[in-house]
Amino acid sequence: MNLNREETVKYLLIEKHIKKLIDTNKIEDGEKLPSIREMAEFLNVNKITVVNAYKRLQAEGYAAQKIGSGTYAKKRDINKNFSREYSKVLKKISSDEVKNYIDFTGETPSGEFFQISFFKSVLNEVLDRDGSSALICQESLGYDGLRNSISDVFWNGNIDKDDILIVSGAQQGIDVVSKAILNTNDTVIVEKPTYSGALSVFKWRRTEIIETPIEKDGINIDNLEKILKKNKVKCFYTMSYFQNPTGISYSNEKKRQILRLADIYDFYIIEDDYLSELIYDDSIKYSSFKSLDSSDRVVYIKSFSKIFLPGIRIGYLIPPKKFKESIQNSKINTDISTSSLMQRALDLYIRKGLWRSYINDLNVVYKRRYVYMKKCIDKYLKNQVEFVEPGGGLHFYLKINQNIVIDSIELFRKSKNRRVLITPGTLFYKVPSEGKKYFKIGFSHVDEKNIESGIQILSELIIM
Amino acid sequence: MNLNREETVKYLLIEKHIKKLIDTNKIEDGEKLPSIREMAEFLNVNKITVVNAYKRLQAEGYAAQKIGSGTYAKKRDINKNFSREYSKVLKKISSDEVKNYIDFTGETPSGEFFQISFFKSVLNEVLDRDGSSALICQESLGYDGLRNSISDVFWNGNIDKDDILIVSGAQQGIDVVSKAILNTNDTVIVEKPTYSGALSVFKWRRTEIIETPIEKDGINIDNLEKILKKNKVKCFYTMSYFQNPTGISYSNEKKRQILRLADIYDFYIIEDDYLSELIYDDSIKYSSFKSLDSSDRVVYIKSFSKIFLPGIRIGYLIPPKKFKESIQNSKINTDISTSSLMQRALDLYIRKGLWRSYINDLNVVYKRRYVYMKKCIDKYLKNQVEFVEPGGGLHFYLKINQNIVIDSIELFRKSKNRRVLITPGTLFYKVPSEGKKYFKIGFSHVDEKNIESGIQILSELIIM
Repeated sequence: MNLNREETVKYLLIEKHIKKLIDTNKIEDGEKLPSIREMAEFLNVNKITVVNAYKRLQAEGYAAQKIGSGTYAKKRDINKNFSREYSKVLKKISSDEVKNYIDFTGETPSGEFFQISFFKSVLNEVLDRDGSSALICQESLGYDGLRNSISDVFWNGNIDKDDILIVSGAQQGIDVVSKAILNTNDTVIVEKPTYSGALSVFKWRRTEIIETPIEKDGINIDNLEKILKKNKVKCFYTMSYFQNPTGISYSNEKKRQILRLADIYDFYIIEDDYLSELIYDDSIKYSSFKSLDSSDRVVYIKSFSKIFLPGIRIGYLIPPKKFKESIQNSKINTDISTSSLMQRALDLYIRKGLWRSYINDLNVVYKRRYVYMKKCIDKYLKNQVEFVEPGGGLHFYLKINQNIVIDSIELFRKSKNRRVLITPGTLFYKVPSEGKKYFKIGFSHVDEKNIESGIQILSELIIM
Repeated sequence: MNLNREETVKYLLIEKHIKKLIDTNKIEDGEKLPSIREMAEFLNVNKITVVNAYKRLQAEGYAAQKIGSGTYAKKRDINKNFSREYSKVLKKISSDEVKNYIDFTGETPSGEFFQISFFKSVLNEVLDRDGSSALICQESLGYDGLRNSISDVFWNGNIDKDDILIVSGAQQGIDVVSKAILNTNDTVIVEKPTYSGALSVFKWRRTEIIETPIEKDGINIDNLEKILKKNKVKCFYTMSYFQNPTGISYSNEKKRQILRLADIYDFYIIEDDYLSELIYDDSIKYSSFKSLDSSDRVVYIKSFSKIFLPGIRIGYLIPPKKFKESIQNSKINTDISTSSLMQRALDLYIRKGLWRSYINDLNVVYKRRYVYMKKCIDKYLKNQVEFVEPGGGLHFYLKINQNIVIDSIELFRKSKNRRVLITPGTLFYKVPSEGKKYFKIGFSHVDEKNIESGIQILSELIIM
């Protein structure tokens, strides 16, 4: 087994070469690498040299072996071509004439109902109260006052303020948690489909991602257990309410089953709670995985950016005790701390009851739009799409009926020409093509008149 | 070479077990693992099984092989014990009676000279001008206006605004760059000693870190070239002015030599420019690696937090063209974007000339303190320490003379009891003990009277 020096050099060279081919897209994500025999013959080296090169590629997360089938390339970036086109289109449009578009791609409230004057007076109050410390302080856990407010207002004091870590939005939360608890090749289960920003983080960490399909009340539990039996899973990433993109919410029963499995199979649940404040269906009662968690299995991540103000870049997370210190260190390594002034302003905004009243306002207007969009879908797209009613959140996820030829990327391109913007489902799957019959339409940036016009246009395009 | 299934399971188990021992500190960072023969005998398995386990550990960054010497454990966290004590002390003190301490640990301006009223009026002007878009917008490269100001004011328009990426401080800059360009086991060269926050990031990415000693005008070039000849180096992390902790600045000659080597040996320079605005010695002229770089080899990272307001959490970076897209994606994966309101406020603050006048004020007061601290060191510590005059920045790095028994951790503990806080050198080395004869004292949080008292106390403690 002791390789001589020459063989070692050879397999390192082969490894390096293949890594480069993968990094530069010469080898595609998921592409099968030549068999060991083929490769050895082609390069005129020992089979053992190729075996060693492939092993290192696997260990470093550049390849995955499928038993009995061979070795496949693994890339960090997913779905690059279309997602690049998608972001280019959105970027270009937002910079010039966004007002002439019906924009169904909005993922967050538009700000039109936000009273900037309230926020301005809160900011000034903070600056008068705290002076330059509002801009000087670096609190690694986050501003004490804000952690207190979060504990009081959102958790009825049931979570200790020192168990709360302020982060710069949910995306950072996912990144910080991943760095702390996931290593190369660790296995992560995600919902199928899921939020592309999370998929990206897990891909960048070169983890093994297993998708599990989502049903009307959460993922399928039998399927989850099958995966857990076969794989040592490190964590499960989930959006418990109005899942992005499907709009699904978990039943409490499923949450409990998943928590029980987490205990049995020793994995952790990363709960991304991004829009649970917007509930229009009175039968939906809110209880997070975290609130049902008696075995300290949940990393709870809350974004204030999604529901409140995207530009504010504040969220928080509540880690299990076991990972508390490493997640805190991961945050410090990432950016030391989150902007102190913004934390202080948000704190005061919450304490003054302005947060609650703003969320109440949003619930009123967005419920109206939700109901209206549903009516329009029923009216214009009835025979073209299927969907599950989310009962909250900011969007609908529609499935184009099987007998219709158009796919969602084509629909995106055509509707863009008619000045209507949608989000194709392809962005939410590990294998993009699995989402080509789905698209997402959100109503946060579109008033009722335009909701109707936009859906009429989509209906015309889907039929053709 | 085809291992049977049982052997595969065995080596994976061994690997997993050793990883756990490393993660839980049962095996120390840098500890030698048992030889392959010993381990095979001890576990009663084939040598090949151990070889495979060790190989995987290496590939995943948990171990390093030193030719002819054996395999050594590699940990992500460095220097945990003392750095934990250090941060606990600082945290505890800052939360109660910091005013009774002479705090030489400050790394940033204290804010006492910052005119909060100017900043407040700038903030209000932004809110009046931009309304809620100041809080809604998420610009992935950063706010357009700020990127323009940076290009105009700091680079005379020589850098295109679209080559500038706004980040949430330099720490995030280092993290984002590392994620984009460094893989597990890639080799990074750092100065010895260096900034512990950067060491942490590189450790967390499980890279191979090679330290190279710093001299009066930068690192030793012969030594650098020796390293480059032996290792495939991915990048070199450097602080070009008033290096943290040594206070050294690079000569232009050394900068040019390093740039030349970067071209020859194909590596990149991560330049962390954190305090170059504070120059007290008129013979020091500012020119960054970036400004001398004709082959696009430099990732320039600039912090506004360090020199300006730590709580503002804004910095920027200028990547080489080659990595531009991957570094931008890395930022999006990390936290989507940096707080938009703070970027807009900083932009206006710079445009109104307030930035320049604040920095000028700081130069006046800190030069006075710098001169005074040097005088006090000469007066009280003359026979106890050696140091290089930095000529700028916010601190001195002192070496305790060899014939004196006390080390800097002891000095930290003793001086803390006398209400004087210093930073031991141990925090700045891969192997902490190498820094035990050094300590850092900064003057940004201490007025002249206290500089003198503090240094008198240190002198009493070092002598004993």
